[in-house]
Amino acid sequence: MQLASRMEGIAPFHVMELMAKAKALEAQGRDIVHMEVGEPDFPTPRPVIDAARTFIADGRVFYTHPLGLPQLREAIAGFYTTRYGLTVDPARIVVTAGASGALLLALGALTSPNDEWLLTDPGYPCNRHFVRFCEGVPRALAVDATTHFQPTAEKVGSGWTAQTRGLLVASPANPTGALIAPAELARLWQVVESRGGTLIVDEIYHGLTYGLDAPTALEISDDIIVINSFSKYFGMTGWRLGWLVLPPHLVRAVEKLAQNLFISPSAPAQQAALATFLPETLTLLEERRIEFRARRDILLPGLRTLGFDIAAEPQGAFYIYADISALSQDSTVLATELIEQAGVAATPGLDFGDNAPVQHMRFAYTVSADKLIKGLERMQRHFGAGGR
Amino acid sequence: MQLASRMEGIAPFHVMELMAKAKALEAQGRDIVHMEVGEPDFPTPRPVIDAARTFIADGRVFYTHPLGLPQLREAIAGFYTTRYGLTVDPARIVVTAGASGALLLALGALTSPNDEWLLTDPGYPCNRHFVRFCEGVPRALAVDATTHFQPTAEKVGSGWTAQTRGLLVASPANPTGALIAPAELARLWQVVESRGGTLIVDEIYHGLTYGLDAPTALEISDDIIVINSFSKYFGMTGWRLGWLVLPPHLVRAVEKLAQNLFISPSAPAQQAALATFLPETLTLLEERRIEFRARRDILLPGLRTLGFDIAAEPQGAFYIYADISALSQDSTVLATELIEQAGVAATPGLDFGDNAPVQHMRFAYTVSADKLIKGLERMQRHFGAGGR
Repeated sequence: MQLASRMEGIAPFHVMELMAKAKALEAQGRDIVHMEVGEPDFPTPRPVIDAARTFIADGRVFYTHPLGLPQLREAIAGFYTTRYGLTVDPARIVVTAGASGALLLALGALTSPNDEWLLTDPGYPCNRHFVRFCEGVPRALAVDATTHFQPTAEKVGSGWTAQTRGLLVASPANPTGALIAPAELARLWQVVESRGGTLIVDEIYHGLTYGLDAPTALEISDDIIVINSFSKYFGMTGWRLGWLVLPPHLVRAVEKLAQNLFISPSAPAQQAALATFLPETLTLLEERRIEFRARRDILLPGLRTLGFDIAAEPQGAFYIYADISALSQDSTVLATELIEQAGVAATPGLDFGDNAPVQHMRFAYTVSADKLIKGLERMQRHFGAGGR
Repeated sequence: MQLASRMEGIAPFHVMELMAKAKALEAQGRDIVHMEVGEPDFPTPRPVIDAARTFIADGRVFYTHPLGLPQLREAIAGFYTTRYGLTVDPARIVVTAGASGALLLALGALTSPNDEWLLTDPGYPCNRHFVRFCEGVPRALAVDATTHFQPTAEKVGSGWTAQTRGLLVASPANPTGALIAPAELARLWQVVESRGGTLIVDEIYHGLTYGLDAPTALEISDDIIVINSFSKYFGMTGWRLGWLVLPPHLVRAVEKLAQNLFISPSAPAQQAALATFLPETLTLLEERRIEFRARRDILLPGLRTLGFDIAAEPQGAFYIYADISALSQDSTVLATELIEQAGVAATPGLDFGDNAPVQHMRFAYTVSADKLIKGLERMQRHFGAGGR
């Protein structure tokens, strides 16, 4: 059977191969420190579990409205008020099957064949594949430590062509943990708006910032599309739930797509998510945020001591994107070496784009401080023993 | 903001507008008999609920393998053995976010821009929109009562062009409840295979047949793609879980798509679904099947007595597709009349394609026998009072 032409442009998630290798080694009895996974080790918060268990108890688990439970859309709107001091009409909020579902709906509703989207490189691997899936063309904006791994208005302006449909950025970003300063985000929007384009801001790591708050892009304009998720900050990865905030005039188009492509988001996940905004859940999430910061503050200096170069301090998410040039010629070779010889799993740059991937590696601080320390010690022995 | 060109070809689910009208009337205190919804009124089976509650209790609800939990893929393979006497390699089974996710993955992996798919008309509304979403072109095969609302090999052969990528059929079908006889399905496959095309068979209403069994298309060839779901027969609509059975050489391509578009199916839904194959669940589902048959056997003669023409007896699913010509000129007008004046909701043909939709209406027997009888009595009064 012949595959669709789009499949040539769609690469696998390489980190999954690495996870399979880690699993195989563990099956042989080896102990592996996992710094490759973009999934925190924290369980779903207790009030969220309780809400799900209560809801499913009588078995009445039916389709919901395709845009999500009205009370969840209202609760999300309420969160924008309490967290950001912002009024958002619940009618603009679309509950989705993870941020993945949000990306598919937003890009699907806006991307005609051959439309181009500007995406940062490095960036979240799936973004370019979503664009390609919708028959669009992903255009990489190479970013590096000199601009804190985020695009500048100048770079976006000079990268813009007649085919450019819009710009997709993330703040905090994967794999770099880099934020976009509010003033810079406003400038990005100015460039995009002046060209009649669309700005999508991925805010799925919001809430996970250390030392500063990330304002939502919705403060700048109601015409910006914001993507968020219950996975990362709210601790609900396996439930697959996220949301979109849309300009009002896009809601009907996205609703038609959501009806046809998804019928509805998961009912148990939506009922569970209602409990994420309870005071006791938010208190727990704040404790976790402090723990994430403590983990970063172990891993960041530890990696630097080993010889990894991290020029721009990551201020959010749970990733450190490190330049490995002083330690190895090729991050994929180094990743294999580290997992096989040192028992440490980390993600080579390959997944995140074409901008110097062989010189970079992503470390995730999604495991406990103890494990991070163990991982650092193992790498120290590895490099000290001439592995370097 | 300009919408993607594909959005012109994507229509809303009209039944949802009708459901909104029903809800509004109910909010005013009106009692409505619901025969418009393709969702059974049965709760999720108790063992399935229990499995979900046990799994989520400790909060460790994480991403799963993008193709699904290995034990669920094995359990589904086991179901093919016990139910159909067929050996299916679990490696060919892909767990998806409902049959919706299965359609997106299969059509996304196979449809290049302008590729054409042959679809029955009437048929499941979303099918043509999935094709359009993937930049393919849906081509309607008009079917009617003379061929039991299913396509014949001759019709497929004469509808095939150089642009045709494949054929998508459902057995039992929505909105007609019609099955494809095994010998005819083999002939359909012969035509498709001889032209180098792909056959996708939607089996989401399998298990819900009355008076005869539906063999799976996998008995004919491993190269046929089969779509199934935990929603209908297994009673798990709101959980959003389904599956694909793929020819071995397609698995890797679909895996790449699944990694990028979904990350993983819902973990609680997958753990819950493991309990659908337990003997006590299957016993309960068999009781429900008998209840569905009893409901059909009330609604079918009842509609005929009222003047609806149902030439081909529906043998599966939970739908009756009725010709309304003797009662009204326009099914959309009749649907509005029935809901507003008689308090009965049913779906006009409009959703299901362009083949005589104004002459047809779909009745779903997804509510209790009592309610069906009440709905029939209301319609009798309505037509008797000159509403006809």
